Amino acid sequence: MDFKKDAHTHHISQKFNVELDQIRNRLMEMGGMVEQQMDRALRAILHQDTALAEKVVHGDERINRMEVGIEEACTRIIARRQPAASDLRLLITVSKAINDLERIGDEASKIARLSITLGGTSQASPGYDDLKHVGYRVQSMTRQALTAFARLDTDNAMDVARQDNWVDKHYQEALGRLIQHMKSNVDSIDEVMAIIWALRALERIGDHARNLAEDVIYLVKGEYVRHQRVDDWQSCFDETPLTDSVQSKLSPGKQTEN
Amino acid sequence: MDFKKDAHTHHISQKFNVELDQIRNRLMEMGGMVEQQMDRALRAILHQDTALAEKVVHGDERINRMEVGIEEACTRIIARRQPAASDLRLLITVSKAINDLERIGDEASKIARLSITLGGTSQASPGYDDLKHVGYRVQSMTRQALTAFARLDTDNAMDVARQDNWVDKHYQEALGRLIQHMKSNVDSIDEVMAIIWALRALERIGDHARNLAEDVIYLVKGEYVRHQRVDDWQSCFDETPLTDSVQSKLSPGKQTEN
Repeated sequence: MDFKKDAHTHHISQKFNVELDQIRNRLMEMGGMVEQQMDRALRAILHQDTALAEKVVHGDERINRMEVGIEEACTRIIARRQPAASDLRLLITVSKAINDLERIGDEASKIARLSITLGGTSQASPGYDDLKHVGYRVQSMTRQALTAFARLDTDNAMDVARQDNWVDKHYQEALGRLIQHMKSNVDSIDEVMAIIWALRALERIGDHARNLAEDVIYLVKGEYVRHQRVDDWQSCFDETPLTDSVQSKLSPGKQTEN
Repeated sequence: MDFKKDAHTHHISQKFNVELDQIRNRLMEMGGMVEQQMDRALRAILHQDTALAEKVVHGDERINRMEVGIEEACTRIIARRQPAASDLRLLITVSKAINDLERIGDEASKIARLSITLGGTSQASPGYDDLKHVGYRVQSMTRQALTAFARLDTDNAMDVARQDNWVDKHYQEALGRLIQHMKSNVDSIDEVMAIIWALRALERIGDHARNLAEDVIYLVKGEYVRHQRVDDWQSCFDETPLTDSVQSKLSPGKQTEN
């Protein structure tokens, strides 16, 4: 499906189309920046790279500014253009999504600061394997959620939500092991606490990735699936047919153009 | 200032006014429910009241449903009524505020579950004083933020944000003391960890109360103050005059009517 060809039929104003396109691009740009922050934070804590950690901490400010900029643009467009249902849904969803992206950025920054605290700790310390497993998983979930957003892919969105269940379970198990370790190694308490906080930040990133996945469902189906178990999401798909107008605006075809 | 009298001059449709009024009332109702959950959670953990804690855990579902209901109503009104700037700002702000209220509810529920875990622990245990001080503070901040929202009171909103700095500082200090305590009392690790998680939940409630306060500033001044230090908020007030149309809609006069 070609975006540009459909533009005139969908909106009286070509300029409005350009504005929506810009919003979408800015969201994806912000997503890319957040992914980079997360990647760096994870490498910083896994390889004790303090210089990289400091880059992450300084980079957070840019993401914050980006959030405020996109938020203002969304509100301005809604007020000026008074968009119809599907465009409005896009703008409201972007406004929600940037909030979750900003919080993923916050958690990445937190992990970076913890990696500085951990300093010269050995990677053989308990919890590093958990950091690695949960870290790579939430990193891939965030990437998948953003791709699902760009491609309006509800299957991938559901997959992200399912993985979040794995993350929650793994996090709880790791927590139990780490607390057990503290009990028999009192000297390691400071270090283990820092790892617990980092794991907690990763678990939160998983929650935000899940929120992004819920946004995709809202965008495509117009249904709020928040607070529902992922296995119940399917039920709302059967009721509401896929909205073509949204698809034409953010289709995989369009995605490859950029 | 009387809301009802101004209605016809502000909106062609009287029904639209009623809808906005309902949204505002539902937000305040949800706020009241969240305050009750928080109050119960705090009493449950401070007085080891397991029955009360279970009430909180079960009550969370109602708040979740309320969030989804208000969110859907906001989107429906925006789509149908295509509101002008100040009404749009109200609807967007409510949509943000309910998200923070829902998360305060989540944290209250978390505290209630932790109080069940703590079970028969003595109140003389370390951290209970901190739970009490931080707990009462964030409880009062949430109340104050909701009142500031209802009265469009930016002074009170700023005060909430300032108190959040106190909460963050007190939380960090308490954390240090509790970790120190774990080191010299290995047997208390499980209990202290539960108290740390509860304190963490309270600290998060403080953040959400601050977010609500930021929403008030956006509602009244049309400025996003997120990520700004509270001392810098004043600068945006000097630039933007108070919007009368918003004031007439959510004025203290109106507040006393209900």
